[in-house]
Amino acid sequence: MQPEIYSYLYPKLFAAGALDLYLTNIMMKKNRPAVKVSVLVKKEDVVEIEEVLFKETTTLGIRKYEVERETLAREYHEVEIEWGTVTVKVAKKDGEVINYAPEYDDCKRIAKEFSIPLKEVYQKVEEKFKL
Amino acid sequence: MQPEIYSYLYPKLFAAGALDLYLTNIMMKKNRPAVKVSVLVKKEDVVEIEEVLFKETTTLGIRKYEVERETLAREYHEVEIEWGTVTVKVAKKDGEVINYAPEYDDCKRIAKEFSIPLKEVYQKVEEKFKL
Amino acid sequence: MQPEIYSYLYPKLFAAGALDLYLTNIMMKKNRPAVKVSVLVKKEDVVEIEEVLFKETTTLGIRKYEVERETLAREYHEVEIEWGTVTVKVAKKDGEVINYAPEYDDCKRIAKEFSIPLKEVYQKVEEKFKL
Amino acid sequence: MQPEIYSYLYPKLFAAGALDLYLTNIMMKKNRPAVKVSVLVKKEDVVEIEEVLFKETTTLGIRKYEVERETLAREYHEVEIEWGTVTVKVAKKDGEVINYAPEYDDCKRIAKEFSIPLKEVYQKVEEKFKL
Amino acid sequence: MQPEIYSYLYPKLFAAGALDLYLTNIMMKKNRPAVKVSVLVKKEDVVEIEEVLFKETTTLGIRKYEVERETLAREYHEVEIEWGTVTVKVAKKDGEVINYAPEYDDCKRIAKEFSIPLKEVYQKVEEKFKL
Amino acid sequence: MQPEIYSYLYPKLFAAGALDLYLTNIMMKKNRPAVKVSVLVKKEDVVEIEEVLFKETTTLGIRKYEVERETLAREYHEVEIEWGTVTVKVAKKDGEVINYAPEYDDCKRIAKEFSIPLKEVYQKVEEKFKL
Repeated sequence: MQPEIYSYLYPKLFAAGALDLYLTNIMMKKNRPAVKVSVLVKKEDVVEIEEVLFKETTTLGIRKYEVERETLAREYHEVEIEWGTVTVKVAKKDGEVINYAPEYDDCKRIAKEFSIPLKEVYQKVEEKFKL
Repeated sequence: MQPEIYSYLYPKLFAAGALDLYLTNIMMKKNRPAVKVSVLVKKEDVVEIEEVLFKETTTLGIRKYEVERETLAREYHEVEIEWGTVTVKVAKKDGEVINYAPEYDDCKRIAKEFSIPLKEVYQKVEEKFKL
Repeated sequence: MQPEIYSYLYPKLFAAGALDLYLTNIMMKKNRPAVKVSVLVKKEDVVEIEEVLFKETTTLGIRKYEVERETLAREYHEVEIEWGTVTVKVAKKDGEVINYAPEYDDCKRIAKEFSIPLKEVYQKVEEKFKL
Repeated sequence: MQPEIYSYLYPKLFAAGALDLYLTNIMMKKNRPAVKVSVLVKKEDVVEIEEVLFKETTTLGIRKYEVERETLAREYHEVEIEWGTVTVKVAKKDGEVINYAPEYDDCKRIAKEFSIPLKEVYQKVEEKFKL
Repeated sequence: MQPEIYSYLYPKLFAAGALDLYLTNIMMKKNRPAVKVSVLVKKEDVVEIEEVLFKETTTLGIRKYEVERETLAREYHEVEIEWGTVTVKVAKKDGEVINYAPEYDDCKRIAKEFSIPLKEVYQKVEEKFKL
Repeated sequence: MQPEIYSYLYPKLFAAGALDLYLTNIMMKKNRPAVKVSVLVKKEDVVEIEEVLFKETTTLGIRKYEVERETLAREYHEVEIEWGTVTVKVAKKDGEVINYAPEYDDCKRIAKEFSIPLKEVYQKVEEKFKL
């Protein structure tokens, strides 16, 4: 399979209902390096996802098993830094902030506009965001 | 475990009913790099596969879970190229060709006999094989 | 997530009931390298493990599925080598020794005390231990 | 380092003169998983590349060594398939075609426009392209 | 090689002059998964490092090549957070702060003493540390 | 590149003078997983190795750098175990045995002939082989 196919595959899978996906390097029999594509999907979207995988990749077989998913409730806050506003995704458990992450697209936009290293934008947001 | 054991392990596992297998590099606790062996097997062959894994590897535990498998129907076609005949594995879905792959052993035989790069043999087959 | 967090995470997870854990490198969408943390845990400890994962890592979601586990019965034998006693973990199946492994802590202690390569200590134990 | 930073880093590095780059998963001391960024760069661009790496990543050190590079001469051919024209990158050695690869962007454009699997576009090009 | 040997190997290598080290998973011929140990070392310590590698691992060969290293100047600052003092390693380039990282051991000590998630300690330090 | 090509590539490279080779999984730009082929080769065989790589793989470029190699002197001993004779490769440094490894082909032959687990054959050899 042409390695370029992966970045083409991703939007197709998300459009078909994929909730998440990731790749793992594996080693098959007879010295054959391969890439395992793992897709998290709701039961009702399985058939459509399989359709995409069979059509867009060279796989001859797909394996499926059920997983339960535990996720944190998420909220979106806005944080003002000196170069503009950044949305922060806040994950809560029992009402308490457990995790937070500045939104990449906001940080990237600011980094580009003001020619600041991206990581500096992240740091400024973390400095301003009060837990 | 001696790394040589893997190539010895494979035929043993296939003889015991393995349908497929692959290796994944993992990192265990305390900085210990390790290799996870994943075997796809029918329920009725699980006991025999476990026997092989315990006897031939140094594992102390095996984890099992059920997977469902979706596979494409396969047919075998013959394709003539200038150096001989190559079998092509054709995967179909709802009667339509979805994937195809020239058989490695045929291509390899021709590549050796005529001293041609293996990839050139593959390319010739792809050129000739009409979707 | 700071990579230092992993070695901090391990004792927390074992204290919460983890039976085993390992890391796998994965590649998420948009060129994002990531590390998947896999934890083996009894059903009754799942909630506590999730608590630790959400609190100590930056994950926003945890996936769970049931696995069955086949393990070998284990015994502990003592083996005398010229520099002291080493415990050997012996795995049995149907009464027969299937696997054995010298205990790391014993071998390490001897290697340090007598300034011998660790692998030499292992070799001596293997030489003395009669299957 | 936020994993999102990688896709931001790439255009910055190419703009600074990177000829190629790739990531490798490594395991550092103390159970710390990490990602090694390898950049191929001409001598005269090294300083600028270092500037980008230090500014945009959290690395504290960069290692450099000289490599020689052997590359094939490349030509660009156009191949007509039923849905349009695709450029094919052709690599030659001593005047002989050694490798060729359809351009991803052309294939992707056609796949999208005609709602065909991307791999089918590749296959059509390979069928038409005469070595 | 017993995977336990790695955590034993690390202090030995650092004692022999290793400046840094990391592991990479590789796949050798004949389906043999292996682990490559990379050690950064000053020229004058090469012989001693080789001695350790040959004695403590099962390798039969060591490959060496020269690398140049570019590192940032480092300073250590102290940052007060509500639970105590944390040292922050600050990397500078041309007098400007480029990177900084709270010291793991300080953060870990506080996390343990006050039963706070380690990542919260890091976040508090980042909040207080002014670039 | 078809993953089957790797096992075909190996004997070609060794025939062309490769002293050793291994694969590493890497991640290229634009989400493209790839496999890096590393070949150790004497200077006088570089051209022939390049020829094989360009002909048999789809690479468009090869990078080269010089490495020095430190290897242990090797001897071959014979060890008698209850099922036959096994050659043991012995590595020495300054006249002292540093490493040893039973030859895979001998162990495999015995394991097959007597239907014994391969690892048991290794263990018997280690038991008999006196350092």
